[in-house]
Amino acid sequence: MARINEHYRKLRAGYLFPEIGRRVRAFEAAHPEAHVIRLGIGDVTLPLAPAIVSAFRSAVDELGVEATFKGYGPEQGYDFLLDAIREHDFAALGVALDRDEIFVSDGSKCDTGNVLEIFGAGCSVAVTDPVYPVYVDSTVMSGRTGEAGEDGRFAGIHYVSANEANGFVPDPPAERADLAFLCTPNNPTGAVATHEKLARWVAWARASDAILLFDAAYEAYISDPALPRSIFEIEGARECAIEFRSFSKRAGFTGVRCAYTVVPKDLLGTTSSGERVPVNALWARRQSTKFNGVSYPVQRAAAAAYSPEGLKQTAEQLSYYMGNARLLREGLGGAGFTLFGGVHAPYIWMRTPRGLGSWEFFDKLLAEAHVVGTPGAGFGPAGEGYLRLSAFNAREKVEEAVARIQRAFTA
Amino acid sequence: MARINEHYRKLRAGYLFPEIGRRVRAFEAAHPEAHVIRLGIGDVTLPLAPAIVSAFRSAVDELGVEATFKGYGPEQGYDFLLDAIREHDFAALGVALDRDEIFVSDGSKCDTGNVLEIFGAGCSVAVTDPVYPVYVDSTVMSGRTGEAGEDGRFAGIHYVSANEANGFVPDPPAERADLAFLCTPNNPTGAVATHEKLARWVAWARASDAILLFDAAYEAYISDPALPRSIFEIEGARECAIEFRSFSKRAGFTGVRCAYTVVPKDLLGTTSSGERVPVNALWARRQSTKFNGVSYPVQRAAAAAYSPEGLKQTAEQLSYYMGNARLLREGLGGAGFTLFGGVHAPYIWMRTPRGLGSWEFFDKLLAEAHVVGTPGAGFGPAGEGYLRLSAFNAREKVEEAVARIQRAFTA
Repeated sequence: MARINEHYRKLRAGYLFPEIGRRVRAFEAAHPEAHVIRLGIGDVTLPLAPAIVSAFRSAVDELGVEATFKGYGPEQGYDFLLDAIREHDFAALGVALDRDEIFVSDGSKCDTGNVLEIFGAGCSVAVTDPVYPVYVDSTVMSGRTGEAGEDGRFAGIHYVSANEANGFVPDPPAERADLAFLCTPNNPTGAVATHEKLARWVAWARASDAILLFDAAYEAYISDPALPRSIFEIEGARECAIEFRSFSKRAGFTGVRCAYTVVPKDLLGTTSSGERVPVNALWARRQSTKFNGVSYPVQRAAAAAYSPEGLKQTAEQLSYYMGNARLLREGLGGAGFTLFGGVHAPYIWMRTPRGLGSWEFFDKLLAEAHVVGTPGAGFGPAGEGYLRLSAFNAREKVEEAVARIQRAFTA
Repeated sequence: MARINEHYRKLRAGYLFPEIGRRVRAFEAAHPEAHVIRLGIGDVTLPLAPAIVSAFRSAVDELGVEATFKGYGPEQGYDFLLDAIREHDFAALGVALDRDEIFVSDGSKCDTGNVLEIFGAGCSVAVTDPVYPVYVDSTVMSGRTGEAGEDGRFAGIHYVSANEANGFVPDPPAERADLAFLCTPNNPTGAVATHEKLARWVAWARASDAILLFDAAYEAYISDPALPRSIFEIEGARECAIEFRSFSKRAGFTGVRCAYTVVPKDLLGTTSSGERVPVNALWARRQSTKFNGVSYPVQRAAAAAYSPEGLKQTAEQLSYYMGNARLLREGLGGAGFTLFGGVHAPYIWMRTPRGLGSWEFFDKLLAEAHVVGTPGAGFGPAGEGYLRLSAFNAREKVEEAVARIQRAFTA
């Protein structure tokens, strides 16, 4: 009698984006003349940078020739990519990492979900609210929660509200938790944590022997050099944090698939007998047993994002998207909307007008401006009353979206 | 206090292949003049087929152009690949599958490990012995076993011995189990199950409401059309089996990373209250939450393996490897070794001479013939007394390996 993992049944039926897709398809079917502009899902739109395409192609060619063919690669990633990561993403910030503290993978979604496997079943989990749904869903699937309440919050998860009062970057919770997901620059609010704020989370984690699961997938969008890009810029974080990074948003890799996770060797977990155990070795074991490395040409493509041309070309792409974000902020702010984010992140967090619910405003925006956003409530109850707009689209579509929203809502 | 997953500590320190690597490096350091021939790890050596390289390159180019750029793809895989799989791998065998019964992934290692997540923590697991270590290690990591005994077998796993008496394809166990891993053509023994044998496993699974986790990563090596390539050729398997397939060995994708898993919609699991639940929906939920699809160019490359040129070119590669297997069988058989497999699989399962232990023979083969095999004991206690030789290498190296083994052991 093969029993299923019944924790899956606690999850809501649909993931957020399929529901959005359903409503948009229904609208388009009913209004075939409408040119819907999608600022919902956070997916890049610019083509891969030429330097990346060139390296990607060359690596494919290598696989077609006996002398340069490569089979199984090292599960943690090739040295050429690990070294580029160490140099550009960490040494440049004054953070020294060993190669074997970095694990190249096919996505931060995978890593932030799978990382829970290496911890005890009884570990409690904290998240900020609103939150990237994968953290919560993976926690539920792993059996660490009870059922969801009426507000959608799961019993057993510590939710820390991110709101206007705390600038959408909350302080650590008063209560203890064993693991805490923290995403900055934040998806969905676009808020970014300062050094001081991250130092408070690190102090909290160290005081309670918790581990921070720090998602820095959007760090490339930070425009102020005074803001921290890595949790490891904070003193003491090597003993209490894992960091997730991705090439998805910084180099347009959402369809190419490459990311990495940093697990410092100073990070220790605890056994039931109180023994201290390196978490790095557990993740290495998990990855070498249940993962087989990232496609070789994809790793070459990712490394090319660090070449001088790759850095220049991807910086131009980020600047293009952030130009979109500025247009959204200025255009919609001028139309009287209250907006957050969009300065160090490609997301604008928009307060719904006249106290509308998130989904109500989503439907209204779709019906009246033919613009798709993401209802804040889809990211958790604290997202109710907000809507996320993404800066990932062509300039002229963003301009048109701003004009349409202004027309529809300035009256 | 972040507790670790203590089940990891039940695992042996080293995975099999790192230990082999260590011994080979030590030997080479001590004997720099020796030209070691590697027939150990099962990794392909021929370059990607031209049709695959061409499609791979074109897809990379598509990502470099705005009009054809692709971001996030469908988590289950693109229709062009799903349809090629349905047509060539299943319809050709008389097996009809829907698109949403197929889940494209980055590797069978990942899928056979991760699939355990969707089942209840109390499910018991059966494996054949010797066995691909990932099945056992993933089961241990998931907490479904006790400690390992002196023989390396874990308490709580049902081991079914594959041996000379049963032609290395055992019958299902007498006792019940909830999940059973079955790999045919088999890694490591090279044995292949007949229709009749698979029908017995299907009958066993249906009688006890178990689920077969059928690993067909080597099906392309089956040379007899009368032998089953898919578990779904067996009547009733849609209600009791999941099948894992890979492009690694059939198209040289060990470094490219593409595989897929078939979860029929007729397959049901059970809840604690006795409700029957489709397993397909659970795997879809797992994959859409913790996985983000396979790289688009990689999917195009995989689809090209099904083009007329791709089929022809990859068939030539398989034929080359199987030519190697024949040389090994004939050459070593002629030298008096007792051999199994190597007819429908790229692995030769070699009985060690004079009752030597697996690792003893491994060391002797390395020292006296400078040839690397894989000790059978590394695949489980029933592999003791055997050594696996892989047919993945250049023809001249295989010829040289045969000659050296003949010289060293015929005396």
